[in-house]
Amino acid sequence: MDIGLATPLKEDQRQTVSAIDALTLLVSDDLTKVNELITQRMDSAVSMIPDIAGYLIYSGGKRLRPLITLAAAKLCGYQGEDHTKLAASVEFIHTATLLHDDVVDESALRRGHDSANVVWGNQASVLVGDYLFSRAFNLMVETGNLKVLDILSHTSSIIAEGEVLQLVSSADMNTSKKTYMDIVMRKTAALFSAAACVGAVIAGRSAREEEALNAFGRDFGIAFQLIDDALDYAGLQEQLGKTVGDDFREGKITLPVVLAYERGSEEERAFWRRTMEEPQQGDGDFSQAIELLALHRGIKDTMDLAKDYAEKAHDALMILPDNCYRRSLDNIITFCVDRAY
Amino acid sequence: MDIGLATPLKEDQRQTVSAIDALTLLVSDDLTKVNELITQRMDSAVSMIPDIAGYLIYSGGKRLRPLITLAAAKLCGYQGEDHTKLAASVEFIHTATLLHDDVVDESALRRGHDSANVVWGNQASVLVGDYLFSRAFNLMVETGNLKVLDILSHTSSIIAEGEVLQLVSSADMNTSKKTYMDIVMRKTAALFSAAACVGAVIAGRSAREEEALNAFGRDFGIAFQLIDDALDYAGLQEQLGKTVGDDFREGKITLPVVLAYERGSEEERAFWRRTMEEPQQGDGDFSQAIELLALHRGIKDTMDLAKDYAEKAHDALMILPDNCYRRSLDNIITFCVDRAY
Repeated sequence: MDIGLATPLKEDQRQTVSAIDALTLLVSDDLTKVNELITQRMDSAVSMIPDIAGYLIYSGGKRLRPLITLAAAKLCGYQGEDHTKLAASVEFIHTATLLHDDVVDESALRRGHDSANVVWGNQASVLVGDYLFSRAFNLMVETGNLKVLDILSHTSSIIAEGEVLQLVSSADMNTSKKTYMDIVMRKTAALFSAAACVGAVIAGRSAREEEALNAFGRDFGIAFQLIDDALDYAGLQEQLGKTVGDDFREGKITLPVVLAYERGSEEERAFWRRTMEEPQQGDGDFSQAIELLALHRGIKDTMDLAKDYAEKAHDALMILPDNCYRRSLDNIITFCVDRAY
Repeated sequence: MDIGLATPLKEDQRQTVSAIDALTLLVSDDLTKVNELITQRMDSAVSMIPDIAGYLIYSGGKRLRPLITLAAAKLCGYQGEDHTKLAASVEFIHTATLLHDDVVDESALRRGHDSANVVWGNQASVLVGDYLFSRAFNLMVETGNLKVLDILSHTSSIIAEGEVLQLVSSADMNTSKKTYMDIVMRKTAALFSAAACVGAVIAGRSAREEEALNAFGRDFGIAFQLIDDALDYAGLQEQLGKTVGDDFREGKITLPVVLAYERGSEEERAFWRRTMEEPQQGDGDFSQAIELLALHRGIKDTMDLAKDYAEKAHDALMILPDNCYRRSLDNIITFCVDRAY
């Protein structure tokens, strides 16, 4: 039964049902199983573990990465049950990363709530992240698919490398666009790409189809992160579920700033170095940053680059079977990019 | 060729060659391969990763856990090369745990040097720990042995649970002997046990032999940790490679203190609560702690319990083939316990 959407959503439809909601509906039975698995596997006799894990896991995340895994597997005609384990595994890796990320960034807010490190402390966040990471591996191992294990374990190393690279580059205005893109590729795109690719692998599809889903995930992931980084300067707080200007305050160098710095006068560069590197920020600095970003098209060009990657992600899907799942994945690309416009 | 030691070392021999040195010599070719693998797999284009990982990995650790894996595999007649991958994997899990442990404990010293978190910061230690943990999984996956993957990924969850349990119990004088033993089982014994057991698994030995190595590792691990906790109050700084009294200063409740608290007067209990829970420590408190531990046999009984577990570990080995590897494992049990006397 094809209950997918045949064409991208029109403007008025988008107001009532987002493409992510549509995908959630399309794989709702499987997603229920994923949520059951998550609840079951994050449990522990050490009660602080489900407390912290649950706090983050039930905090209103969209389950975007597991949705991609489920849709990719179904798109490829997979008939078994192991895709739900892989989807739960991908969500655990993501959640573990968030826990450690918030410790590293000293973030106070995550998805509109106090972040776990604020509520339980950094120490607990580190250790519960480790637990979830191990549970992710337990789930993968249960599928008995060595290729999937290889992909996901390598992805985990790549994510960690991306995190370290970001740490090293933080508060450094000499960060190039190349380094920024390298961080995005590792920190965000790698997991999107693996989440999609394992769907083809578990379904036993050809290398060409694996590669297509891999490319879809990677390019969609890059577009997703670029939009996220643009919205950190341009979004509304309720829309983001995080504080606007977080990246600015943390001295996290994202593409809008890299572009404005590259294109700025010596005086403007001094402003960026003072506010991002030292960091010494006062009233009016964030507004000044927004003005410079507008002047040098920092946000606009970041969004346009996101659109380019979104196009590539669309194209990558084209060799795959044209079914409701493919169309649903196609729609989430459009939706995620359009939320910024 | 049997170059193992036929009997436990005599007192005078122990002064020139320890049982760990003897085991190192026995598997030296394999250990060279393990060290090459470690160097190769901890590398990354992000140079901070090998810097931090190498700082800890080359800081003079004895490679006790990988030695156990190598000896267990050889004991079981294993002829392949995958045991070196498993040994490197076990060392990576251990190193990742140490990195995160030092962040959680806010330790300043590890193996006699500044700990990595002091040199590079907590953030980097968390992320490089994640990287090593992922690399451990990469190595396991390369063996293609799903049973080994199952054992080691479950072991990782158990270690993380142990860490959280220890965090929850820290600075809590109501910690029971049962909780303490549960922490030791998870934090230390689980990895020793897995390190030994995978040797039998990779060699395709019977469930009975797997279980024997599992029991050897577990009971030896418990003995090892009990001795370590006793020496934290009784050892010499050069011998420990860490500051004597670290556990006391960090409010880490270990068995010597649990016993002294249980057996102490109300006034003595108030002393422990003040120094470990609040914590409020002044000159003379550590000496006072040592006196109370002596009075209530806290250290002595901890060491005696270690001896009991060491006996069990010896017994567990008995069903396995009597060769140089078994005798060498047997000798390290004796050596590790005797270092406390």
